[in-house]
Amino acid sequence: MGYTDTVEVGIIMGSSSDARIMLEAARVLDGFGVLHEDLIVSAHRTPERLGDYARHAEEIGLRVIIAGAGGAAHLPGMIASYTVVPVVGVPIMAYNDKEKGTSAFGGLDSLLSMSEMPAGSPVACVGVNKAANAGIYAAMVLAGSYPDLADALHEYRHKKHDAVLEESEELRKGGLAKFGA
Amino acid sequence: MGYTDTVEVGIIMGSSSDARIMLEAARVLDGFGVLHEDLIVSAHRTPERLGDYARHAEEIGLRVIIAGAGGAAHLPGMIASYTVVPVVGVPIMAYNDKEKGTSAFGGLDSLLSMSEMPAGSPVACVGVNKAANAGIYAAMVLAGSYPDLADALHEYRHKKHDAVLEESEELRKGGLAKFGA
Amino acid sequence: MGYTDTVEVGIIMGSSSDARIMLEAARVLDGFGVLHEDLIVSAHRTPERLGDYARHAEEIGLRVIIAGAGGAAHLPGMIASYTVVPVVGVPIMAYNDKEKGTSAFGGLDSLLSMSEMPAGSPVACVGVNKAANAGIYAAMVLAGSYPDLADALHEYRHKKHDAVLEESEELRKGGLAKFGA
Amino acid sequence: MGYTDTVEVGIIMGSSSDARIMLEAARVLDGFGVLHEDLIVSAHRTPERLGDYARHAEEIGLRVIIAGAGGAAHLPGMIASYTVVPVVGVPIMAYNDKEKGTSAFGGLDSLLSMSEMPAGSPVACVGVNKAANAGIYAAMVLAGSYPDLADALHEYRHKKHDAVLEESEELRKGGLAKFGA
Amino acid sequence: MGYTDTVEVGIIMGSSSDARIMLEAARVLDGFGVLHEDLIVSAHRTPERLGDYARHAEEIGLRVIIAGAGGAAHLPGMIASYTVVPVVGVPIMAYNDKEKGTSAFGGLDSLLSMSEMPAGSPVACVGVNKAANAGIYAAMVLAGSYPDLADALHEYRHKKHDAVLEESEELRKGGLAKFGA
Amino acid sequence: MGYTDTVEVGIIMGSSSDARIMLEAARVLDGFGVLHEDLIVSAHRTPERLGDYARHAEEIGLRVIIAGAGGAAHLPGMIASYTVVPVVGVPIMAYNDKEKGTSAFGGLDSLLSMSEMPAGSPVACVGVNKAANAGIYAAMVLAGSYPDLADALHEYRHKKHDAVLEESEELRKGGLAKFGA
Amino acid sequence: MGYTDTVEVGIIMGSSSDARIMLEAARVLDGFGVLHEDLIVSAHRTPERLGDYARHAEEIGLRVIIAGAGGAAHLPGMIASYTVVPVVGVPIMAYNDKEKGTSAFGGLDSLLSMSEMPAGSPVACVGVNKAANAGIYAAMVLAGSYPDLADALHEYRHKKHDAVLEESEELRKGGLAKFGA
Amino acid sequence: MGYTDTVEVGIIMGSSSDARIMLEAARVLDGFGVLHEDLIVSAHRTPERLGDYARHAEEIGLRVIIAGAGGAAHLPGMIASYTVVPVVGVPIMAYNDKEKGTSAFGGLDSLLSMSEMPAGSPVACVGVNKAANAGIYAAMVLAGSYPDLADALHEYRHKKHDAVLEESEELRKGGLAKFGA
Repeated sequence: MGYTDTVEVGIIMGSSSDARIMLEAARVLDGFGVLHEDLIVSAHRTPERLGDYARHAEEIGLRVIIAGAGGAAHLPGMIASYTVVPVVGVPIMAYNDKEKGTSAFGGLDSLLSMSEMPAGSPVACVGVNKAANAGIYAAMVLAGSYPDLADALHEYRHKKHDAVLEESEELRKGGLAKFGA
Repeated sequence: MGYTDTVEVGIIMGSSSDARIMLEAARVLDGFGVLHEDLIVSAHRTPERLGDYARHAEEIGLRVIIAGAGGAAHLPGMIASYTVVPVVGVPIMAYNDKEKGTSAFGGLDSLLSMSEMPAGSPVACVGVNKAANAGIYAAMVLAGSYPDLADALHEYRHKKHDAVLEESEELRKGGLAKFGA
Repeated sequence: MGYTDTVEVGIIMGSSSDARIMLEAARVLDGFGVLHEDLIVSAHRTPERLGDYARHAEEIGLRVIIAGAGGAAHLPGMIASYTVVPVVGVPIMAYNDKEKGTSAFGGLDSLLSMSEMPAGSPVACVGVNKAANAGIYAAMVLAGSYPDLADALHEYRHKKHDAVLEESEELRKGGLAKFGA
Repeated sequence: MGYTDTVEVGIIMGSSSDARIMLEAARVLDGFGVLHEDLIVSAHRTPERLGDYARHAEEIGLRVIIAGAGGAAHLPGMIASYTVVPVVGVPIMAYNDKEKGTSAFGGLDSLLSMSEMPAGSPVACVGVNKAANAGIYAAMVLAGSYPDLADALHEYRHKKHDAVLEESEELRKGGLAKFGA
Repeated sequence: MGYTDTVEVGIIMGSSSDARIMLEAARVLDGFGVLHEDLIVSAHRTPERLGDYARHAEEIGLRVIIAGAGGAAHLPGMIASYTVVPVVGVPIMAYNDKEKGTSAFGGLDSLLSMSEMPAGSPVACVGVNKAANAGIYAAMVLAGSYPDLADALHEYRHKKHDAVLEESEELRKGGLAKFGA
Repeated sequence: MGYTDTVEVGIIMGSSSDARIMLEAARVLDGFGVLHEDLIVSAHRTPERLGDYARHAEEIGLRVIIAGAGGAAHLPGMIASYTVVPVVGVPIMAYNDKEKGTSAFGGLDSLLSMSEMPAGSPVACVGVNKAANAGIYAAMVLAGSYPDLADALHEYRHKKHDAVLEESEELRKGGLAKFGA
Repeated sequence: MGYTDTVEVGIIMGSSSDARIMLEAARVLDGFGVLHEDLIVSAHRTPERLGDYARHAEEIGLRVIIAGAGGAAHLPGMIASYTVVPVVGVPIMAYNDKEKGTSAFGGLDSLLSMSEMPAGSPVACVGVNKAANAGIYAAMVLAGSYPDLADALHEYRHKKHDAVLEESEELRKGGLAKFGA
Repeated sequence: MGYTDTVEVGIIMGSSSDARIMLEAARVLDGFGVLHEDLIVSAHRTPERLGDYARHAEEIGLRVIIAGAGGAAHLPGMIASYTVVPVVGVPIMAYNDKEKGTSAFGGLDSLLSMSEMPAGSPVACVGVNKAANAGIYAAMVLAGSYPDLADALHEYRHKKHDAVLEESEELRKGGLAKFGA
């Protein structure tokens, strides 16, 4: 039982290696019953597909595109140049990798490559690896049209709120000492 | 003649010194006939107003809140914690100032303070000082509900596109030499 | 046997995942016999609690609030906007995490989000993850009213001082060679 | 008419070229009637004076030391190593200078040189050039002992609060357009 | 009298505001008699033109494409995704601007957006604003096919070399004192 | 069966510890049948060899030199100062090392040491550790003279393109869920 | 059998946890027969010892002081403020630590805290963790007085030089392939 | 009347545009009566001169080489690779320039290019543009052989020390107010 009855969110990423991160956006949307389609669109390996995807997005009536990419991370900005559907960018920092070490620039390269888009083709970014927040944000955009979804988002917030109060009460009683090794 | 007939976008900023930058968001929305209200809400000087503004935003049916702030720049994130209306953050870097010099961190402090929001309360950011892009983005979010606004956005893009072609043709013929001092 | 007979320090943090770091502040205060209460106050999950906590802090007569937070790290600054009790900020960098890698920005995001507060609502920060120093600092603030606590702080310093002399003498005699693998 | 009747705050700085910035701390304290003494103590040009100043600070009963410094900025940390009076550090970024250009590192060098103090000798920092906030912070520390000073700080906040409301109302009515050139 | 008799270098840029910088590449190539064509190709305002330009580049036999762009700076990388002609990227940092201040990130955003291209679609970058070096580099690539151009490049180097010796001799005799105000 | 019948690419590196990274450049060139020679030339341990290598490069007719180096990373720039053969720089970030931790500056030191070369002696850089891209880039430079190599590069791109389409189709059908733990 | 017959180099460090890094300076000096004494002098835990050490250094005729420190890293600069013996600074980045993660700022904090000393009290820095280079540098300073030590340094260089040639020849013959997994 | 009777310090720089900064090193040495020779040696425009200069330095018995350079700044490191005379590096950040704006990286590129030299060829760096400190440092190195120079350095320090005391006394009496506009 969901709040949208057609696919209104597209989740795209530049590579299947980004899927472990982008999965969190899908899970959030699934939790709210928001239908989405998940694709790989590589700005650099399938550049001519960018326009095709943008046209497809407008044709099937997507309301939000969540686009994740790492390194030079041109995908979100290029999609945003082809369509007027709002793009939520997710800068991706590579996982630790025994062979290759950690990402050289901690995702800052990708964050700036998305946020510093020129006037007229905005990408709005969430934080590095914060795909879950991109999912929430997409739901917030849709909630403007689906009051029930807005209620569900408020409900989600209330649960988080109450969980903090419980944790805090537990901490107040038990003190910080129990967190020692 | 506009595309929205009620106020659906709120433009807020932390200080009247941010108005010179945020003005560009207002101009973009004015150009598309999108009604907006403009307020100063200071996270640090009027903290209890954050919740009031958030309730007000939901009551009058805002679909997008554009929030600009510099320095610690808590405004967008705090508003995003009180409401499920999507917030577009604009990190603001201070203008050059003879007395105080330029911003110490070039707006990076504000960009990270907005983008690195924890799971559940996202802010989606545009680039430093890019208030115009925040205005476009707000229009893109609304365009999902107003097909005429989507058309207007496409038209706006076409004009930019054609202007580039003209400039390019002029450059191709005249060469780069004319840009010398 | 402590130096304060009422709770005069509040230790708050944005999430229970910060407790492993903030524990060090509690230990320092326990060592000096300074009473404290430990709570979770999330700027983003329990925003309306910020004002409540600030009022509570003034009512029970807190003299210092130690506030730890990571990422966007708005907690210390928001508390500082609601109260005139001085806030010591602790920027928190996430622990290494097999799944998520290290913090993207090494705590710099949190450090700037605390230190760059606008005029009128200061947070004074210690270094990244340096909760122990926040505990010492709180004790130093209180020591202005409790001469015995000032003496205890001097005593603590003398012990550290003497330990360095001993280590140095050992090094001078044994040389650096013994530190080789 | 002030809230303290002896000098309880020391304002020190590494060089007379820092005075233009540190002046703001003095003005804030003057506004609250907090007595202070202002000195130049150079960690690098008068190193043996550090201990003398620290002893002097304890003897005359200083409750807070505000220490501003730029570049390597060792002054706040070294003072904090000699005394248990809490030190508020002000990282100073040089003014624009026609001959020498702007500061190479935007004050980040000084911010880290203060905040990253080792366990046991904390400095608590405000933001780059934010001497006014250091003054407020010192007043907040003293307010724990002077209820009238706490009231004055609340009053100061209320004025700032009301000024924002006025500016906001003006903006709401006049719109952002008036900020255009 | 030049070393190439057809256009073998394309100079493209994202905006006419980049022309003041890119002019230096054109001047260097003109100096070596290397024919070039100069165009504006905006990745974000004319995205579908990227593929057209790439095909055009291969058809007319370009051997090197020099691509300058600022901010998100996707142009060089996107062109490199459409063609196998080597692309030399020039990260562009905006000129000082009284209204907008200097570039927030000093060109680092653009440098990383070009260099951090994924495996298979490389861009090779010169330094920020170093369009002259991009021109030299293009000439070096062509010199592999035009021995006379290689000789001209060596000649150019010799002149620079001799100029340094002259300046050095003048300095050795006159000393540094003459550089004082 | 390759596209070049003499050695036209030199792969050099500052230390044998760089070989694990530079190996990827060799593999790419081997895959395209481009002959290369691999040497260690240390700017700092064998400085007088820089000129010898440059002369050797011109004598045997190298068309591209791929130079990898870490830390201060002077090798690519110094070689570029001795010859007019184009140099592709590969900034190298050290592997994780149990004893010494990760590289202090994530390769940014090396990237800037290569890209910020003064006018007249350009190095064109690929991203940190991106030796594979340096190999592709060298092949692209040679492809201007070897049409079959250009075809092979297009073929290589097509395979990457098709692989993305397959992965995307798999993702579209299976969804992101399968990437969960 | 060494080149100096009295102790002319002091190796000091802020903490015994720095000894694993500073050991490399001692080993280099031992290798050249340069006598040194090794001490712990903590700027923050034994501040009054700074002047004592400086006087001691001048009395026993030290020619170079090698000072290593991490974090705020005031030790080298403070020693340099007390004496005219030249100080070589070694910025120290903490080892990986399971409990505390890696250093937040990669040693940049310490590098700047040493290099950005004000006019009159210079510290000359080597790179992060590069204690071996500090040892070499100290030997180079002494070599101005000990011709045999200069010869030994040249000999050391020749050995490094020849080792590179051997490794290079091995690489040239065997190719990069052998470095694959 | 000076302390050295032969030239024992070489001041070199990569370009005559660095002379305005390096002049400060010369002035300091002149003030102490230390003879020096001043030359331009460009690592990139006169690379083969590096070895010649190094041999010359050893032949005429230089005890210290002060080397300033900006951008990629290879000069100090390359000289250090050719000789065992200790090199003091001065990272140079370009002056403000109406045409070209400020340096993109604030001298950090040059600082790292000098400090991060590999084991065996150290450069010891002072701070960005701090040529005066390089001059002092050279004098400190020589003072190990010239007791009178050591005395002069102490005298120079005493004057700076006394000047601080005077300025401080003036500030203590007049207060910070006089620094207001």
